[in-house]
Amino acid sequence: MLSSSMLRRICLVPTVRSSRPAWIATCRSMSTKPESSQENKKPAQFQLKTPKGTRDYNEKEMAIRQSLFNTITRIFERHGGVTIDTPVFEMRDILSGKYGEDSKLIYDLADQGGDACSLRYDLTVPFARYLAMQGKKDAQQMKRYQIAKVYRRDQPIMTKGRLREFYQCDFDIAGTFDPLIPDAEVLKVLCDTLDAVQVPFSIKLNHRKILDGLFEVCGVPTDKIRTISSAVDKLDKLPWEDVKREMTAEKGLDPSVADRIGSYIQRFQNQPTHDLLIQLEQDAALMSHAGASQGLADLKLLFEFLEIYQVKDRVKLDLSLARGLDYYTGIIYEAVTDKSEGVGSIAAGGRYDDLVGMFSGTNKTGKPKTIPCVGVSIGVERLFSILMSRQKNEIKSSKTQVYVISVGDGLLKERMQLVRELWDAGIQASFMQKNKPKLERQWVACEKEQIPFAVIIGQDELEKGQVRIKDMRSKNESQGGGSLLSRQDMISKLKQKIKESSSF
Amino acid sequence: MLSSSMLRRICLVPTVRSSRPAWIATCRSMSTKPESSQENKKPAQFQLKTPKGTRDYNEKEMAIRQSLFNTITRIFERHGGVTIDTPVFEMRDILSGKYGEDSKLIYDLADQGGDACSLRYDLTVPFARYLAMQGKKDAQQMKRYQIAKVYRRDQPIMTKGRLREFYQCDFDIAGTFDPLIPDAEVLKVLCDTLDAVQVPFSIKLNHRKILDGLFEVCGVPTDKIRTISSAVDKLDKLPWEDVKREMTAEKGLDPSVADRIGSYIQRFQNQPTHDLLIQLEQDAALMSHAGASQGLADLKLLFEFLEIYQVKDRVKLDLSLARGLDYYTGIIYEAVTDKSEGVGSIAAGGRYDDLVGMFSGTNKTGKPKTIPCVGVSIGVERLFSILMSRQKNEIKSSKTQVYVISVGDGLLKERMQLVRELWDAGIQASFMQKNKPKLERQWVACEKEQIPFAVIIGQDELEKGQVRIKDMRSKNESQGGGSLLSRQDMISKLKQKIKESSSF
Repeated sequence: MLSSSMLRRICLVPTVRSSRPAWIATCRSMSTKPESSQENKKPAQFQLKTPKGTRDYNEKEMAIRQSLFNTITRIFERHGGVTIDTPVFEMRDILSGKYGEDSKLIYDLADQGGDACSLRYDLTVPFARYLAMQGKKDAQQMKRYQIAKVYRRDQPIMTKGRLREFYQCDFDIAGTFDPLIPDAEVLKVLCDTLDAVQVPFSIKLNHRKILDGLFEVCGVPTDKIRTISSAVDKLDKLPWEDVKREMTAEKGLDPSVADRIGSYIQRFQNQPTHDLLIQLEQDAALMSHAGASQGLADLKLLFEFLEIYQVKDRVKLDLSLARGLDYYTGIIYEAVTDKSEGVGSIAAGGRYDDLVGMFSGTNKTGKPKTIPCVGVSIGVERLFSILMSRQKNEIKSSKTQVYVISVGDGLLKERMQLVRELWDAGIQASFMQKNKPKLERQWVACEKEQIPFAVIIGQDELEKGQVRIKDMRSKNESQGGGSLLSRQDMISKLKQKIKESSSF
Repeated sequence: MLSSSMLRRICLVPTVRSSRPAWIATCRSMSTKPESSQENKKPAQFQLKTPKGTRDYNEKEMAIRQSLFNTITRIFERHGGVTIDTPVFEMRDILSGKYGEDSKLIYDLADQGGDACSLRYDLTVPFARYLAMQGKKDAQQMKRYQIAKVYRRDQPIMTKGRLREFYQCDFDIAGTFDPLIPDAEVLKVLCDTLDAVQVPFSIKLNHRKILDGLFEVCGVPTDKIRTISSAVDKLDKLPWEDVKREMTAEKGLDPSVADRIGSYIQRFQNQPTHDLLIQLEQDAALMSHAGASQGLADLKLLFEFLEIYQVKDRVKLDLSLARGLDYYTGIIYEAVTDKSEGVGSIAAGGRYDDLVGMFSGTNKTGKPKTIPCVGVSIGVERLFSILMSRQKNEIKSSKTQVYVISVGDGLLKERMQLVRELWDAGIQASFMQKNKPKLERQWVACEKEQIPFAVIIGQDELEKGQVRIKDMRSKNESQGGGSLLSRQDMISKLKQKIKESSSF
């Protein structure tokens, strides 16, 4: 399963942070030494890094990420979304046969006895497995969202936010409803989310039944439809000639069939959605295909609903969109950013009516007990890259509102007493954890953390039962060392000031 | 590495949900079939379950979990905590030699080429690795919190919340400060958090330097101190005779040395902290040990600070507390619930001054470039078990505030139009995704989801540009079909009602 180029990468390439070639670590990990030998305390030889394709996020990056997650969650919840949690790894068999050509990118856990497991590749298959395990009928209708990490052994491009460990933000509607109503809502959710994040975008949309009908009408054998579909999906990255070569030379499709597909796709390219729907309707060969005809009816209804939801203009029918994954059965879509942001696809999804049935078996009449689903997965790493590149000012990562400062003698215990009062009143507060900190260093720490208010005490204030409060953002020179007030008024005064400052 | 009992478990025990013995799945996973053979579409034979020791959380459980996480985050942020994120798996060598006897519980990733990786066992070692990788001086002082999943191949007890995949909520203070100030704050954070969750608790505390001093004074050889320490740590679960047997028969300690340890621990057991501190001070043999003497000075200062933070009464000195992990160097502690809640240890932590140095190497003078740290890890799964067992009422999982209902004809597009207006005004709204839903079923859905307000439209209201708003929680019969108002006042009226209802 390892290509020779992969082997080369593993064994020979020295790492950036270590003069020791990477293969030493690799070989050590494959040894079968007893556990106890790992326990000796000799300074270990190791590479100080995170595994390939993974990274840490510092507190400033996390402040941006959490605000992004909060925005997305707010939109998902506005649409009635509830969240569930599933394990990071699944039984290996659950993931098998769901991802087409991408299955090779799945991370496996080592065999240490017990269940054969793999890290989840997306959140959709685990959700379908979850639905299949819910026995009760009323648990089979839900709008669920999930914001969680998934894992793919892909070639990472860290600068573009393509990682091996990354977050997906999924919103899915499961259950039997009337046609296209949930589909339209998922697209509305997608538009509202990307609008809330203020990323310019457009959505490409297609229908698997039209695409499959088109392939069949062109003469693609049934067993080749999925693999030819994933070749077509590369049209946004490769020229037609390369895609054709993949279809014919690699995948054994008759060249004349490939050419028929090519001429269809070319004919329909770059047409306004409205014109394209009319052209499809007038294509007698295609409309004689029951699936394609059903697909077209779906699209017409969908665009009616999208108009009501006022997002019709954001969605463009594109017959070259195919999506690589096996499990889609109805509409499919992909959101892309404007070229100005330069990161391409930022969300994708579609309808997958048969996936739950692959887990839940059949009922008494032999029909699969499936639950129809439609959903979208938002690639938050790319949104995060865009948001980070927009940051102009220093990011405030802590929520601290008040810094307790002493003038003159250290007054450690007095500062601790003050900060305890603030904490117990629910105020985010901090102080310099030194016995006798210099005044200057306390100011610097307060400013560096962008803490808006300082409470200042000296021996004088202490004796009089007073404190000084200073608004650190005020450049008003007359404010000087802050305004003096009675110690017992401190909490209420600070709460008032914090409330005022957060309402800006 | 597999014991015969583990092999028996893997190969023979049939699973609950499948009549097929588990070994079929296990053997399949070990086969070396090429990837493509996994891709055929035959209905796969698989077990519909999550891997052993893992579980799903449904939307009601997640509502409780998220409220728990929010409470904990609020306390962490009150103390100036910022969050970071690290990968779920680390380079295997990073984790080696950090967890003493528990290292055997680490999950490894399969060797698929590239880095040898393991799932993180806790959040402390990855945090230390993170700190060591921060080159800049000012990144080496931080209060960081992290709420994330960790992985242990332990024997799961699902009913008690002991899982193989579980969340930890960690708060740590890294950096060089004056003695015991950060230690006291971490204990304050722990007390505030458990108070906020309203779980009755007490904290057992000890000092590694006192414990190690005691072992040395009793005659334990230096290379046996850690392993004898983890035997003593079992005293809360096992009688002294069993612990002594582990020390002597299993770990080769001279029985007379074990007896000396036993008499020390027995003498100090169940004493009030104040008395114990005096007794330790008067123990000339122990105080002649530099480490133990330093440890005692630390404790005296710590309890002074805990008194200022008004949490002194929650913390009890307990010389039998040892903590299994290797990396602690100063105070160590463990929070336990009152017996009434019956889940035992709910949080633990301590000072670990040398762990970062194990990653960051040495400076020019040969001293390790370490960063002193102190922290606590809260076992949120056990808190979650307690909170779930307290739930009396049905849990509302969705945030939906308004349900749009049609009377008479389906009015699908009109309902979609209304709900779009609500969404675009930021109101959490929903409707039944059917063309012609029965009125009764719409009421039931609205009530089942505990949605507080209904907006009702019929042909009559539509023609007059009106809607009805009904407060679903009101049992007031006179309210009947809700109050009629002009369509253009709907948003502002609903916003007002939602604001009023959320301020209760």
